[in-house]
Formats: sequence, structure tokens, C-alpha cells
Amino acid sequence: MRFTSEQRLDDGVLEREFTLDEFPGILWTPGSMSAPAPLVLLGHPGGLHKMYPRLAARARACAAQGFAAATIELPGSGERPRSAVAEQARADLRRALEAGEPVDEIVDRLVLPLVEKVVPEWRITMDALLSLPEIGGPIGYAGGVIAIGIRLAVVEPRIAAAVMFAGSFVPRIMFEEARQVAIPLLVLLQWDDEGNDRQSALDLFDAFGSKEKTLHANMGGHTGVPRFEGDDGNRFFARHLK
Amino acid sequence: MRFTSEQRLDDGVLEREFTLDEFPGILWTPGSMSAPAPLVLLGHPGGLHKMYPRLAARARACAAQGFAAATIELPGSGERPRSAVAEQARADLRRALEAGEPVDEIVDRLVLPLVEKVVPEWRITMDALLSLPEIGGPIGYAGGVIAIGIRLAVVEPRIAAAVMFAGSFVPRIMFEEARQVAIPLLVLLQWDDEGNDRQSALDLFDAFGSKEKTLHANMGGHTGVPRFEGDDGNRFFARHLK
Repeated sequence: MRFTSEQRLDDGVLEREFTLDEFPGILWTPGSMSAPAPLVLLGHPGGLHKMYPRLAARARACAAQGFAAATIELPGSGERPRSAVAEQARADLRRALEAGEPVDEIVDRLVLPLVEKVVPEWRITMDALLSLPEIGGPIGYAGGVIAIGIRLAVVEPRIAAAVMFAGSFVPRIMFEEARQVAIPLLVLLQWDDEGNDRQSALDLFDAFGSKEKTLHANMGGHTGVPRFEGDDGNRFFARHLK
Repeated sequence: MRFTSEQRLDDGVLEREFTLDEFPGILWTPGSMSAPAPLVLLGHPGGLHKMYPRLAARARACAAQGFAAATIELPGSGERPRSAVAEQARADLRRALEAGEPVDEIVDRLVLPLVEKVVPEWRITMDALLSLPEIGGPIGYAGGVIAIGIRLAVVEPRIAAAVMFAGSFVPRIMFEEARQVAIPLLVLLQWDDEGNDRQSALDLFDAFGSKEKTLHANMGGHTGVPRFEGDDGNRFFARHLK
């Protein structure tokens, strides 16, 4: 892990960009810490640059609770090399959605390879971040691309709790994997998400094996998650990461 | 309104029992107030005495936020005269549920007359409580018997926000009434509620006309609402009653 830039934000939060092997990321740590901070991994749909304002806002809210936060670029997004297969799947998905055609096979082609590639990258990132003296366990995952969250929650014992946004396509085969998830979950659902089938999201929530799981459904479309859900997510992490 | 008893609880909350016309109730006010307190009406399934520990705990949590809280006995419950018709409907409902038979007609017979009778009583209670110098508007409703909450939210403009527990039978005709509800709502659902059909609860949440409505679904049965939902409810009221 190599830090490539560092700046102190106006609220005292330290923001550092880093690179790890072939991908970049950002780490935010609270302005003052008396002990190593629990870490929240911020998932997103790809494109660090475009997502930066929202990610930074989420990271500052984490820091205000005493958590460190980190994110990495997704394979095939931002400055990272494009995958022809993924680009083709993305185009196929757009076309199928516009035509009202079934998308299951395309979602498998798009999401499964992404999960296979990014989850090991998240784990390398966790290794690197936990080697820093200012970062301690446990770790929470908060983010979109819920399939990534499912796999991480299943394979990575250092993930103690997760906030997942049920707003992206999940390969049907991963519904079975969701049954193996056992950590506390807060699942967010936008009730009128134009790109996400409500019943499918409810089925996924039902499938999660966790004994403690909570669904928060709010009105509005994909990008309309109310601001207060950020606070709720941080309180959820405060219960499970402290 | 006549106060019949008064005691100061250990956290400073003032608890006063009252009677109004033919029904009793309890009012809790914060130990210290600098201005008239917003009021939260605590709904429950009937039986003030049996429900007292849970109601008092909810009231203390309200008081800790600076809210007054009040509840009244339901018609046909506690010390109030029994209704032969309601008792018959209750027995029929138990029998039908055990036999796995349809309950819609019985629910109508049980719940609709209850709503007709108790909603005017809640409104009289609101008049009386708002005449006290220590109580100000706006008013929130928090409680079970969701049909009562629906009617109150539709007919009573002083109700500014409501936390409703989707854990009781709602006459089908009231799903239409739910479309007229326009105030901010937090709807609680127990995912595996033995006495409550999940799909019907989701349909009801969908039916509410409110622009701001949030569903919180948690694992477990009817009485398993997690403690943190009480905090979430109070934060919801803090957003809308202050």
C-alpha cells in the first residue's frame, strides 16, 4: 500500500489516496482518535472520481462516529482498464431493460465476474489497512452492488456487520449464497426503484440467513435514499462495531 | 378531564392517571420542560393494566426526548364494560385462525366498530390534553391496532406524524382509507409475525398515501420488535414534532 496524496478536510478528517497493486483507493480517518478506529468499507457502483462527493460525505459521517472509512475503485471502472466482456454485458443489459426483455443471463455475465475479481481486492485492502496502527477491527461493509456485499459477508470473517443497498441486480445463484450470510444486516430498499424489482429485493431480504437483519424501505427512486438513512446506518455500525 | 393519581417516577417523569367521561388514561410529562411539550399518543391493543410496563417504558423514552406521552383504555378492555358483539367476534377470530379459515368478515366485525368508538375518544383526549399549559402541539401517534392509527391520521389534522405497528388485522375497506393518509409515517413490521400476514402488511405500506413513509422490518414474531426501534421511533418524532 502506497499513499499517493494526503489532505486534511475542514472537519479535521484526514483523507489519503492510496494504490494497492493495480487499483487505487481512498482512506479517511477521524481527526482525533484515542484508539485504533473500527473500519467501514464503502462500496459503490464504480467510478471513484464521479462518486467522490457522495463517498466523501459518507466517510465524513463515519469519521464523526469515530470510524475510519475506505473505498477502492472497481475493476473496469474509473482509470482501471476496461473489460470488453463487462462492457458488452453492460450494453446488453441496457438494451434488454429498454426492450423489457429478461435480464437474468446478462446479470450473471456482468455481476458474477465482478464479484470474483473485486472481493479478493477488498480482502487485500483490508489486510493493508489493518496493518496501519490507526485502524483496528471490526470491519463493516456499506454499499451498493449488493452481490459484492453478499460474497464479502460470506467469505470474510473480519466483516462484522453490513449495510446493503438492495438497489442493484443480484444473480439468482447468489440468493442461495445469501442464506449463508450470518452477520447483522441493515438492508436499504427504495420502494419505487426504477431499475430494481421490489419483489426480488424483498425475496433477497428474506433469504439472508442473519438472525439480526432489518429492512428499511423508503419512498422514491434509486438515488432518493433519504439523508436520515445515513445516520441510521452509522447507528447500526455503532451498535455492532464498537 | 380529572386527574385521579399522580406520582413522580425515578427519572423525574410525572405520571398522572386521569379519567375523561367514561374512560381512564395516563399522562406522562418530562421532569423538566422549558416550553409546552409535543405530545405522543401511545396506542396499544387494550388492557391498560396489563400493558402498563411496556407503555410506561415507551413514555419514559418519549419524555427523555422532551415529549409528553399519553394513552387511554380501549372500549371493551380493562375496567371498561365488555361488548358482547366484540367478545363474540374475538372468539370467532380465534376459532377461525386455529381452523385456518378466512377471517376478513370477522375482522370487519371486530375492528370497524372499535375504530368508530375509540377515535372520537382519542380526539376528546387530545382536546383535554392540549388545554393543559404543559402540552403543546404537534401530536404524534404511535401504536398497534394500525386501523386506529389510519383513521386518526385521516380525520385528525392535529396528528402530524405516526409510527404504526403493522401487526394487527386491518379491515380490507381501510386499505382505501390508507390512501388518504398524507402525514409522515414510520411503519414497523415483524417479518415472521405469527398473527399477521406479511404480504398484507407490505400491501398496506404500499397503500399509504404519504410522500414520506418508511418501513422498518425486523426478524422475529409479533412481540419481538427490537429495542432499537424505540429509539428510531423517537428520532422519527424528533424530526417531525419539533
